[in-house]
Amino acid sequence: MRIKRLAIIGVGLIGGSLALALKKAGVVDEVVGCGRQLANLEKAKKRHIIDNYTQNIKEAVTGADMIFIAVPLGAIKGVFQEIKGHLSEQTIITDGGSAKQQVIADCLDVFGELPPYFIAGHPIAGTENSGASAALDNLYEKRRVILTPHKKTAPEALEKVQKMWQICGAEVINMEAKHHDEVLAATSHLPHLLAFGLVDSLASMKENDEIFQYAAGGFRDFTRIASSNPEMWRDICLANKSSVSLVLKNFIAEMNLLLTLVEKGQHDELEKIFKRAKTARDRYIDHI
Amino acid sequence: MRIKRLAIIGVGLIGGSLALALKKAGVVDEVVGCGRQLANLEKAKKRHIIDNYTQNIKEAVTGADMIFIAVPLGAIKGVFQEIKGHLSEQTIITDGGSAKQQVIADCLDVFGELPPYFIAGHPIAGTENSGASAALDNLYEKRRVILTPHKKTAPEALEKVQKMWQICGAEVINMEAKHHDEVLAATSHLPHLLAFGLVDSLASMKENDEIFQYAAGGFRDFTRIASSNPEMWRDICLANKSSVSLVLKNFIAEMNLLLTLVEKGQHDELEKIFKRAKTARDRYIDHI
Repeated sequence: MRIKRLAIIGVGLIGGSLALALKKAGVVDEVVGCGRQLANLEKAKKRHIIDNYTQNIKEAVTGADMIFIAVPLGAIKGVFQEIKGHLSEQTIITDGGSAKQQVIADCLDVFGELPPYFIAGHPIAGTENSGASAALDNLYEKRRVILTPHKKTAPEALEKVQKMWQICGAEVINMEAKHHDEVLAATSHLPHLLAFGLVDSLASMKENDEIFQYAAGGFRDFTRIASSNPEMWRDICLANKSSVSLVLKNFIAEMNLLLTLVEKGQHDELEKIFKRAKTARDRYIDHI
Repeated sequence: MRIKRLAIIGVGLIGGSLALALKKAGVVDEVVGCGRQLANLEKAKKRHIIDNYTQNIKEAVTGADMIFIAVPLGAIKGVFQEIKGHLSEQTIITDGGSAKQQVIADCLDVFGELPPYFIAGHPIAGTENSGASAALDNLYEKRRVILTPHKKTAPEALEKVQKMWQICGAEVINMEAKHHDEVLAATSHLPHLLAFGLVDSLASMKENDEIFQYAAGGFRDFTRIASSNPEMWRDICLANKSSVSLVLKNFIAEMNLLLTLVEKGQHDELEKIFKRAKTARDRYIDHI
């Protein structure tokens, strides 16, 4: 697997880390970065994440054999619109968006039919930091990357994208887009909503300064994801609206049940739920 | 500050770590452990957390100048009942329970009036592990310990308990018990309820095995506290019922608001809340 010209649209944590890992592996000849913020692109060039940059998307993708779109979900459709008509037939287009049905719908909308060289993808990795300065060459090591190929995906394109991620140290899994969205709503989108909601609900209490002062050890870890990028998570929650709503409703029902059990002092039921959760969490930890 | 005979009732993470820190500082002559599980007491002796042990509480406290009660909240009243009548007038009694009004009410109930040498306390520290094997000599370093003295607390007793915790590296703060319970409900008890509730709600989904398999990086940290001791957290939530109910209701209201915003696709409002949360969380992290 060799990439001649890799165009990274959005050189942040996700896009920048892919470029760094591929460069480290020596499988890419040229990386061109493209993004809205000039200072970020300059930082990326300084860190050798990209070899050169342009703020013109058309220019970035011209001559590229691999395009990786890593902009916030709400901006992906605009990227499709800009690159349309500037691709060779065998230019592979993939992305890192956290909700796949919406990306595929956007692509269909712009191109009229899904291009055989388009493969939606999602590397399940990240930190609460963002921007080119947060990029890491080992971000994808031992992480999972989910690809959601469509019916007309060209097998050779799928294979190349798979190899690209494997070279970064990731395990690649193919999945239906709808199924991806359901699973990720539960394990990623819901936890982010909860963390943002919890911190906001505490921050709005009148003693909020004091409250944070007495936060216990676990609080720092528990709320880490509330330091994530607000714009990005807004887009994700809205792009995956139906799955997110469903898991959020289930969670609210569980919280209402816990409230009732606390108010009624139902020791046994409360302990049963806590035990069931601990068992599930300990089993999950044993498996990672 | 010197302790001749320290009786640790409940030699787990909290009690064991206090003993280890005081022994390391060389300020205690003898530590006697007392608890329900013989194997745990033997482990504690092997690790030199305690010098000797007994399963008879009366025997443990006889001759002690400092008693530290570190059993689950639901068992503290039983300890008060057992030690009553076996204390010298100047035996200091303190505890590590996470909800203070209930401990004080239990003490009043058993003793008829609050003993001048009784000072309720709460070291804000812990890990998700429990038992003597989890005890650490530096658990309290740079942590906060809240003491909730009552109106008739003897100043010399308060001073001794303060010094004891300071020797362990902790910052000691005095606070009204009611206020302690409100603050801790928000920063500790609520997050634990959420984490247990989230994991249980995901574990009950039909694809639960797969869901945990695709959990992202943040999930491990976010759910760490769901691996905490279920019995202990059941007791804490019930002992602090009124404050916990209040913050849980506020949180559920916030989650319902987020659900509405997601369903209605209200970009701006959603981003505003996420931004407010990120700002609060980042400010909190800057201060610790």
